Parts: sequence; structure tokens; C-alpha cells
Amino acid sequence: MSRVRVACLSMSLDGYVAGPYQSSDDPVGVGGARLHEWMFATRTFCRRVLSRDGGDAGVDDELVARGFDGIGAWIIGRNMFGPIRGAWRGEQWRGWWGDAPPFGVPVFVLTHHPRKTLEMAGGTSFHFVTGGMHAALQMARDAARGEDVRIGGGADTIRQCLHERAIDEMHIALVPTVLGAGEHLFAGLDLRGLGYRCERLAGGERVAHHLVSRITT
Amino acid sequence: MSRVRVACLSMSLDGYVAGPYQSSDDPVGVGGARLHEWMFATRTFCRRVLSRDGGDAGVDDELVARGFDGIGAWIIGRNMFGPIRGAWRGEQWRGWWGDAPPFGVPVFVLTHHPRKTLEMAGGTSFHFVTGGMHAALQMARDAARGEDVRIGGGADTIRQCLHERAIDEMHIALVPTVLGAGEHLFAGLDLRGLGYRCERLAGGERVAHHLVSRITT
Repeated sequence: MSRVRVACLSMSLDGYVAGPYQSSDDPVGVGGARLHEWMFATRTFCRRVLSRDGGDAGVDDELVARGFDGIGAWIIGRNMFGPIRGAWRGEQWRGWWGDAPPFGVPVFVLTHHPRKTLEMAGGTSFHFVTGGMHAALQMARDAARGEDVRIGGGADTIRQCLHERAIDEMHIALVPTVLGAGEHLFAGLDLRGLGYRCERLAGGERVAHHLVSRITT
Repeated sequence: MSRVRVACLSMSLDGYVAGPYQSSDDPVGVGGARLHEWMFATRTFCRRVLSRDGGDAGVDDELVARGFDGIGAWIIGRNMFGPIRGAWRGEQWRGWWGDAPPFGVPVFVLTHHPRKTLEMAGGTSFHFVTGGMHAALQMARDAARGEDVRIGGGADTIRQCLHERAIDEMHIALVPTVLGAGEHLFAGLDLRGLGYRCERLAGGERVAHHLVSRITT
């Protein structure tokens, strides 16, 4: 059965998934880049996202690969698609990822501002959803044709999904760093009360991998 | 030089170091016992705290042992010493640990209510400090005679010490569980702003070990 998944969500020891003061020059916030170093160092990320050789094999790499396997559609928040706030101001911005983004499947972008679908190279298409999370989930499930839907982020989108128990499983990479401020993942969310449990996936080379799953009731 | 240390502080993935609804029957709160299972399973904890054989050797065990090594005095909060709130109501309560507590050195208990020092078997003595954290730190440092001072907890005591940059290093065991509510360790504390950094210590058998250290300025 198709699941809704979060994968490779990098979180600091003090619970932040992005640093403070996010901007177009610094989309992950001050100190936030440290959160993603482990992923940038993997073979799968180098190949799929950076389109180059290199990177390490190992446990961290396996988890990154698993995050792409069996995904039939993505949902991402507006801010993960680009730095523009408010109306789109033309059609120029086509995402952070160049002409051939690493998704390879339909991507549903949550936004308040309508925009035409973008067909990119390599099988990626960006669909702009103004009807909210539930509409996006329905559209992504349909597009995924039985495969899983991956929620890419950012923090707001994931928190909203967790609050509505829409996520089946969430892989969190615990990064040995403290950020002190920024986007907190769990503040105000009672994960246990929402029916989630946690288990250890693996100790990786650079981070500790955890799986948070919803107990089906 | 004598350092002020926290060791074996068990924290859930969502940042709690104790569950909600703490009581004398349930001193670590609902779900909180799960946080300490990894420690109960170690050889050092069985021997030193439970006074029995058994328990596992390994990385987790080494970290528990390290938490006892070179400690010349402890500081603990009132609630870690016992369940009684307010005035002491007699001298009957002598801690959770029986006649020979596992500390083996002087222990300074933060409280608003004066009480005579308790001399226990095995080298432990409980000293009740009504002058606040700084007084307790001074007394503990003097008593430790060049060895380290360990801050035992609970969360309030540790948070207060972090806020005043009184802790030199803090070993946190990240436990693969979610509690959803309870005593949060880092809420409202800007660890980076306070001058703390984090590194990975080791992936243990049951938990992931992290070290948060103050950068000396």
C-alpha cells in the first residue's frame, strides 16, 4: 500500500531542522548547512542530486538511497521550491535544481499563488497546489500510482502533516551539532499522543538514523 | 583542572529528559523509564547502582563508567534526592538509594529547606544547600579537591547551569523513543549562543552518545 514518507530529515541535537535567518542567499539558515553535510558526503547524493561522481558508500548512503526508492510523487512547501515570497512575479524561477531536478517524478508544491505546471527534464514536473495539504496529498497519491509519496519539507509542511497524522513514517538523521535557534521540528507536537513511535534504524558514519512511525489504529 | 560535567543524560528524540506527571510512584514521569533502560542494561550500572552482577559490557557501558570516573562531588536537585516537596517533615527520607548510595563522594542537594548533613555508608554524604546554584558549585568544587563535579539533574538544575554557562561538558545519550510531553531539556536555551558545541562520541549498543562542550573563551 502507498505510504506517505519523510526521509533524510536532518535534525540537530537540540531539535532544529534549519537555522535562523533563512534567506535566498542562505536557504537553510545560519548554521543550517552543517545539518546536510552528511548527505552531501554520500555517493547517492553526489550522483542523483549533484550529477557527479564521488561520495562515500556505507550506512548513511544506504539511507539516502532508500529515501529515493519507491517514491512515486513528492510534496514540498513553497519555500523549499524557491526563495520568492508572495506572488510568483513571472515564470522565471524553476526551482533550485537546474533543468533536470533529481526527483524524476511529479512534485506538488504547496502555495497560495496559482501557476502553470512546469515540465522539466528527466521526468520531474512541478505542480502548484493552492487547495492545501489534503488536496496535495490526494493529487500526489493519484500521481504516485501505488508507490510512496515523499514529503520533502520544510519544517512547516512536515509539522502540519504530523499534526494531521498524515505521515506514515519519518526517517530522521540526528546530526551531532547544536544550532540554538531556527526551525524546530517537534515544538508543541505531542508525537506520542498523535500515535507515533520511534525506533533506531542504524548508527551511520556521520549521523544516527531514527525511524518515527505511526501506529496504525 | 576540575571540570563541571553532566554524564549519561538520557534524552528522547523529541528532546525530553523525563516524562509528564512525575510523582513519588513514578519519579521519571509517564514513559520516562524507557529513557533509562540502556543504562540499566550496562555492567557498570548493575554493579555500582544495583549492587548485583550482570549487565552488558560495550560502548554504552564504557560511557556509564566514564560518568563515574574522576568525580569528586555531585550536585543534584531536590527532586532527584526524593519525592518530598516543601519542608522535609522529619529526617526519615534518606534518598532513593538505600544505606550505601552509589556516589561514594559528597553530594550537594539544592533545596530551599535546611537540613542536617547525612553521612551514609560507602563514602557518600548528602549536604543540603540553601544558598543556590553558585554556592553549591563552590562547595562542590572545594569538596572535589581537584576532581570533577558531576551535575546529576534533574532537568531544571541542568538547564539553570547551562544558562549560566556553568557546565563544561555534557554527555547526552540520545534514546530512540518519543515521549511527546514532559521535561524538555533545550526549550528556550540557545546553546550555540551560550558558547556550546556538539560532537559525536560514539554509536552505542542501544543509544547514540553525544558530547556538548563549552568553548572556553
